[in-house]
Amino acid sequence: MMMNTTKPTTKPTRAAAAAAATRRPVARTHRYSGAQPTVCRAATSVGPSERASSFEFNTKVFPKLQVDFPEGETEFVVKGGRDQFELVAKAFDGIKQVSVIGWGSQGPAQAKNLRDTFSEAGMDTKVVIGLREGSTSYDEAVDAGFTEADGTLTGVFEAAASGDLVLLLISDAAQASLYPRLLAAMKPGSTLGLSHGFLLGVMKNDGVDFRDDINVVLVAPKGMGPSVRRLYEQGKEVNGAGINASFAVQQDATGTATDIALGWAVGVGAPFSFFTTLESEYKSDIYGERCVLLGGVHGLVECLYRRYTREGMSAEDAFTNTAETITGPITKIISTQGMKAVYEAMPTEADKDTFMQAYTASLGPCLDICYEIYEDVACGNEIRSVVNAGNRFDRFPMGKIDQTAMWKVGEGVRAERQKRAESGDDGIPINPFTAGAYVALMMATVITLREKGHGFSEVCNESIIEAVDSLNPYMHAKGVAFMVDNCSYTARLGSRKWAPRFDYIVEQQAMTSIDSGSHDIDATLKQEFLTHPVHDALRMCSDLRPSVDISVTGEGSGGGGARDASTNFKAGVAASS
Amino acid sequence: MMMNTTKPTTKPTRAAAAAAATRRPVARTHRYSGAQPTVCRAATSVGPSERASSFEFNTKVFPKLQVDFPEGETEFVVKGGRDQFELVAKAFDGIKQVSVIGWGSQGPAQAKNLRDTFSEAGMDTKVVIGLREGSTSYDEAVDAGFTEADGTLTGVFEAAASGDLVLLLISDAAQASLYPRLLAAMKPGSTLGLSHGFLLGVMKNDGVDFRDDINVVLVAPKGMGPSVRRLYEQGKEVNGAGINASFAVQQDATGTATDIALGWAVGVGAPFSFFTTLESEYKSDIYGERCVLLGGVHGLVECLYRRYTREGMSAEDAFTNTAETITGPITKIISTQGMKAVYEAMPTEADKDTFMQAYTASLGPCLDICYEIYEDVACGNEIRSVVNAGNRFDRFPMGKIDQTAMWKVGEGVRAERQKRAESGDDGIPINPFTAGAYVALMMATVITLREKGHGFSEVCNESIIEAVDSLNPYMHAKGVAFMVDNCSYTARLGSRKWAPRFDYIVEQQAMTSIDSGSHDIDATLKQEFLTHPVHDALRMCSDLRPSVDISVTGEGSGGGGARDASTNFKAGVAASS
Repeated sequence: MMMNTTKPTTKPTRAAAAAAATRRPVARTHRYSGAQPTVCRAATSVGPSERASSFEFNTKVFPKLQVDFPEGETEFVVKGGRDQFELVAKAFDGIKQVSVIGWGSQGPAQAKNLRDTFSEAGMDTKVVIGLREGSTSYDEAVDAGFTEADGTLTGVFEAAASGDLVLLLISDAAQASLYPRLLAAMKPGSTLGLSHGFLLGVMKNDGVDFRDDINVVLVAPKGMGPSVRRLYEQGKEVNGAGINASFAVQQDATGTATDIALGWAVGVGAPFSFFTTLESEYKSDIYGERCVLLGGVHGLVECLYRRYTREGMSAEDAFTNTAETITGPITKIISTQGMKAVYEAMPTEADKDTFMQAYTASLGPCLDICYEIYEDVACGNEIRSVVNAGNRFDRFPMGKIDQTAMWKVGEGVRAERQKRAESGDDGIPINPFTAGAYVALMMATVITLREKGHGFSEVCNESIIEAVDSLNPYMHAKGVAFMVDNCSYTARLGSRKWAPRFDYIVEQQAMTSIDSGSHDIDATLKQEFLTHPVHDALRMCSDLRPSVDISVTGEGSGGGGARDASTNFKAGVAASS
Repeated sequence: MMMNTTKPTTKPTRAAAAAAATRRPVARTHRYSGAQPTVCRAATSVGPSERASSFEFNTKVFPKLQVDFPEGETEFVVKGGRDQFELVAKAFDGIKQVSVIGWGSQGPAQAKNLRDTFSEAGMDTKVVIGLREGSTSYDEAVDAGFTEADGTLTGVFEAAASGDLVLLLISDAAQASLYPRLLAAMKPGSTLGLSHGFLLGVMKNDGVDFRDDINVVLVAPKGMGPSVRRLYEQGKEVNGAGINASFAVQQDATGTATDIALGWAVGVGAPFSFFTTLESEYKSDIYGERCVLLGGVHGLVECLYRRYTREGMSAEDAFTNTAETITGPITKIISTQGMKAVYEAMPTEADKDTFMQAYTASLGPCLDICYEIYEDVACGNEIRSVVNAGNRFDRFPMGKIDQTAMWKVGEGVRAERQKRAESGDDGIPINPFTAGAYVALMMATVITLREKGHGFSEVCNESIIEAVDSLNPYMHAKGVAFMVDNCSYTARLGSRKWAPRFDYIVEQQAMTSIDSGSHDIDATLKQEFLTHPVHDALRMCSDLRPSVDISVTGEGSGGGGARDASTNFKAGVAASS
């Protein structure tokens, strides 16, 4: 990896140009007049040259690091840290008040971190919390030092109206229903800050655009709120501790939006900030949680568990050889050495063949569903479904999924394993067949994102690093189904929707192909896996991980789910108001 | 049931007014200005009074029969038959040429039937077939007497341009890609005829409307093409033989659209024609095949089969007690005596309790998915997904689903049963638990349609009669999975998508509730089932079934799937170009 520091420039940013382009109408009604209408159909793939051009951004304040990824792809990242806090002051020139709307997962963490940063940098920028009337978080906010008396705690719309930078950290559902009033309340020339691009998807479906006269930026920390706070505090002693973030500029009304976004990212403690767009962020995020992060892994272990028990394995052994082997040893290898190392760790040639048979049979069916998910996200279907489901919750509250026979077995298996682990060896084998199928699912998630034009850092972060560094360790402690039952509504709905699709297609296509005896290992697929550029890209992204381990598995904790646990669970999934 | 013949009227039709209303833009792009945008969100329920008002239509040619359904709901139907053919001549005044585009399932049947009807009625209206260049159906059309020499066989666009009534009977996918050119080719004042409302859904998603200067009508026969032809021919000897149809008027440019639609329906041999709208037709149709007709029944039997084998039943017995019991005896009872009769057929009180336990536990989870499906259809998501999937077929051809272990077992079970049946008793028991769960699925399909405002005839036809009179008998002969593998792309995609959702939710919510011992039979749900007005409505609809049994099970035939088999499989599902 090459890293070159480049000078800030003053040219108009490409992000601003891109943002301007998105202000054109997203759907247009016209009477048929002979020409094919411009419609939202399946997104098309993007070639490398088209992709590469979108990674450039221009900051007048922060130094950029150049990262040279495989396939000639160059990204730029911004390094954070406490020694950069003085640049935050420069970037926030004119920002007298940051309003943080909502006190869920990200709200408290970002509010406290920014307050500390402003103090450290000698700034007089005020952090004000906006809560709805009767919010159950009121006391917590007061305990954290935000009070009505000193003007740092107020109502949602008051906060939106008075902020120079307004961070909208309420749940997806609340954003979808409140955005018209919130946007209307904001001051001309102020900046709307999002930690998830979901709202852009909602507004595209609604056929409306952001007001012209405000900035719209995104900073999405790659960990849930409690981790964002905990590692920021660690950062006071340990150099480089913090949670990485991606950032984006959707709309630049003032010409300073990029630096405001970067000031926000560095201010909340991101060691590295990766450039993206709101659209790219919400697509890869909503897609990823439906694929390998949650939905895909759930469906796959249900499918394999059923297969192994049908073949005569005990329920306990089947659980160990599916969920346990994935969230335990396979996750650990990928996290530390990458996906290819799982294959290379197979002890015998026969095991390598078993891995490769499962891999090559499962890749195509998994790709099929990954593509369907991506295109359903890209054309607005998934967001529309999530909004519709929210309107049905009163009548159809979301049921739990972790009470079925398999997950009851899992409870016992995890308890036994934790006892064994105390004596130094958790005794979980690497099952070669499960490993091959799981890596196929992960590669399918990766390949689709690449073909749809996402850059390497986003691909690695959203479909590999997040899985092996945060979600899988959590699942290892609590169970896959528990994780699914305790993430955000958007993620829960998505994994409920897509897990069974992965399950069925892998059984109907991959397993029947293997069982019919007609499935030979496809040499091309094998070769493509072994030489895929994502392995190098992942290694480079791993070098940009924070210096402190962000994953806390929650083992032995009495935790109340993803929201409470100090695990690295991303904002977009876990944040709710 | 009361039937009154009412006089034709000359008032402007309500259908025309409704059609005019749909010409307003379906999505509007506007900059946010403080007001909540008008968007496609979840469809709301419709009260009985609102529903009832939409069943009125005005014909100047055909007598109407009044049908008084429960809940004060009145529908009007038009009786067909050979004695009405002279009215076809009157209704088709000015129609010199009917162009039939496509030669799939409906094309040949409707073309031949109309040609015979015109001849019988002494009309000189010509039937012309439009095929794309190089169509593999060319020879078949020539064999059926349509030739280039006499001007009754031409190209797709030539046929569209020269027809006074243009019947668009190509596949959903072909309609989605060809409609702009086809609509542009049509003559001002001509009539576009559809046998499925799918195209309206596509155009809504695309944000375009039909041209102002043409009529747009629908006639949807409730059977696949071969049945439409076979029963028309039987109708020459047997009074009342034929396939019922629904009809609709989307746009009435000439003031004669309703009678053109009715002339078409009577002309192809519909004994009874039920009034609907294009929108109502495509919603109930696309929804129904995803629920109890295909997706729902598939998911349910997978779930129950897994449950029974886990409890120790042999694979063969589990298959018999799931798929076989549903498509065999349960279907027969519902077809002849209705849903309540299944419950009443339980031999003991204990069996009745078992039925009711499964029913009351499964209804809510099934309703949850039915609602999700309905709203995903209503807001355009399902159609958008189908169109996107069509664009991916080159890379991801649709795989089969009937090769998994369960369906392999089913092959053997069906073969054994057919041997037993030859000795007079097929030996299939009615499993009370399966019966309760299946009837819950059917009732959930019904309840959702009712709450979404569909009239009783549409509800009964699209979610009960179609299941028990046509799809289930076919599945009984060939297997549920085979049926799913051999229907239209739209239906195949839909059942692939939703079957696993029904499977998972019934296991995760209904079965766990029963197994935890916490599930008592809900007295309210039981009472609501026993007194639901749909039971009376179904009896009334059954009286309007044609006099000849339209169901041919295909047993012993060497049939090549739903497309070839002479089974009653509806146009919207099976028609393809």
